[in-house]
Amino acid sequence: MLTASYIGDRQIEVREASATDAAPGEVQIAVAYTGLCGTDLHIFHGNMDARVANPLIFGHEMSGTIAALGEKVTGWSVGAAVTVMPLDWDGTCPACLAGYSHICQNLNFMGIDSPGSLQKLWNVPAETVVALPSSVRLDHAALVEPVAVAVHDVRRSELAPGDRAVVIGGGPIGVLIATVARDFGGEVLVIEPETNRRQQISDLGFTTLDPRETDQVAWVTEWTGGAGADVVFEVSGAASAVLGATDLARVRGTIVVVAIHPSPREINLQRVFWRELRILGARVYERVDFETAAELISLNRIPADLLISRIVPLSETGQAFDELETGRAMKILVDVAGQA
Amino acid sequence: MLTASYIGDRQIEVREASATDAAPGEVQIAVAYTGLCGTDLHIFHGNMDARVANPLIFGHEMSGTIAALGEKVTGWSVGAAVTVMPLDWDGTCPACLAGYSHICQNLNFMGIDSPGSLQKLWNVPAETVVALPSSVRLDHAALVEPVAVAVHDVRRSELAPGDRAVVIGGGPIGVLIATVARDFGGEVLVIEPETNRRQQISDLGFTTLDPRETDQVAWVTEWTGGAGADVVFEVSGAASAVLGATDLARVRGTIVVVAIHPSPREINLQRVFWRELRILGARVYERVDFETAAELISLNRIPADLLISRIVPLSETGQAFDELETGRAMKILVDVAGQA
Repeated sequence: MLTASYIGDRQIEVREASATDAAPGEVQIAVAYTGLCGTDLHIFHGNMDARVANPLIFGHEMSGTIAALGEKVTGWSVGAAVTVMPLDWDGTCPACLAGYSHICQNLNFMGIDSPGSLQKLWNVPAETVVALPSSVRLDHAALVEPVAVAVHDVRRSELAPGDRAVVIGGGPIGVLIATVARDFGGEVLVIEPETNRRQQISDLGFTTLDPRETDQVAWVTEWTGGAGADVVFEVSGAASAVLGATDLARVRGTIVVVAIHPSPREINLQRVFWRELRILGARVYERVDFETAAELISLNRIPADLLISRIVPLSETGQAFDELETGRAMKILVDVAGQA
Repeated sequence: MLTASYIGDRQIEVREASATDAAPGEVQIAVAYTGLCGTDLHIFHGNMDARVANPLIFGHEMSGTIAALGEKVTGWSVGAAVTVMPLDWDGTCPACLAGYSHICQNLNFMGIDSPGSLQKLWNVPAETVVALPSSVRLDHAALVEPVAVAVHDVRRSELAPGDRAVVIGGGPIGVLIATVARDFGGEVLVIEPETNRRQQISDLGFTTLDPRETDQVAWVTEWTGGAGADVVFEVSGAASAVLGATDLARVRGTIVVVAIHPSPREINLQRVFWRELRILGARVYERVDFETAAELISLNRIPADLLISRIVPLSETGQAFDELETGRAMKILVDVAGQA
């Protein structure tokens, strides 16, 4: 079967490998599509070399159908359309015991810490398989994982209908957070400096702002009648965005840290103190987020066609990363099954 | 009447001034004691020159008795023992309208933004007066304000009985937070580098740790069975403490920012993200905190005698600041009434 692996030094190798049978407790999935995301780009850039194997078959945003069932697996049928919540927790660490198994202290993030879905046949623990509504298109369903991230972030923010939310950073996750926040009843502003992205976001019906052109604090202050935003999502990863985020939030407002910040960032703690702000970390998703995401996609509440910039064959995975680097593509899917 | 004012350049001037009558809606208080705090020290150091008047009669931690009532004031009797919650809000800003009047966007913090209690007769809005239980000693009652800060911080943390809490910084507010957290059912560790302070805190029955001698992360990890602390209170104001605080908290743990950080601080956002931490700003107090504080003091649940290092006459207010600067005193009270 064809696979795509990260082999270090900004290189992807596409090669044939032999498939293995599903072990007891595992489900073998015929992967249809795999989306490429920011974390994959971090891996591609070598930023995660200390954590990942080399070579690593990566990829963790996917859709597919069940190809075979390992021993002791019940409740699933071959041919069913599924996706995978790629979190494999130990169930015994303090975080798991406290009810936060999605951020298990010894989490195996499949596709990062173990092989992922850039292979035609992927064996996964049965507990990680999530059923898809029959009406969902498999290309759209490859977006369930990133949509689940957005659902988790918005749920974590406790955004209420009528709240005003600012999303800093209009990449794929930022756009999905904006979409979910609006679906949950929020009024949303997206701050994004890149012109093409801003246009795409504007086309989705969102108010946008170029922080290089507009005084974002003055704009948000006026928009909110002098109060400030109820929720600010930091999705840009930029140091300047973190430093500025505290000026956008209302008294007792919430800032959700979604982006990955590899080095410590300066935060205006005087403002955190002064306005009694709340800063929340938000990572991956819980099962309810995954199921909500599958439902939102099946109900066409996510503009999947607009978000999927391109679908490429598995053999062109490397070039897809080159394109992702330019920041012009929203979401690129890899057609792992070779249907395209 | 005798008054003590900050006059800039690290100087305090003690001088006679004429008292004015209470205006309509005001209560005139014969001040008994005024405690000096970290914010007063900031004023003394000139750090708040852009905000405060010059000269400024400062002081906002106090106790006293009612000397006279202005017109239209009802429900109070001359001679009653009282303290003042020194927050005068406008009631019309977005924060007030959202229910957070204690951090009104146009807050007049009495003793900072307007004259305070380092004067024999202090006129205050009747709404800011808080009755004291008749059993309370007036020297102890001067601690109601800082105890209310601690009650607010602990309430804001949502600390539950059995939780493990770390207090970084064993100054007066740190000790009060530790005391209130223990009173609320928490197990408390206080991290404090200064030997004398550590001894005083240890004498109050708390576990203490010298961060220069002991690996605080290893200690807290072992103390919590590998989980990390439920709550971390950052009361030190030190940049290194902020950077280290995120390593002490458990998955979904809470860090409360109590200290004043005049410049932005580096925070390990990777850890905030990874463990889905919650960082909360906490400022001043609400009425319920003030009333809880008065009750805790009247029930002798606060070790007031141990916390009050010294009581000085009003004429020695300047020297008291010199002593506070050394960091050796916990709390110095000024005997404004001249009873000592």
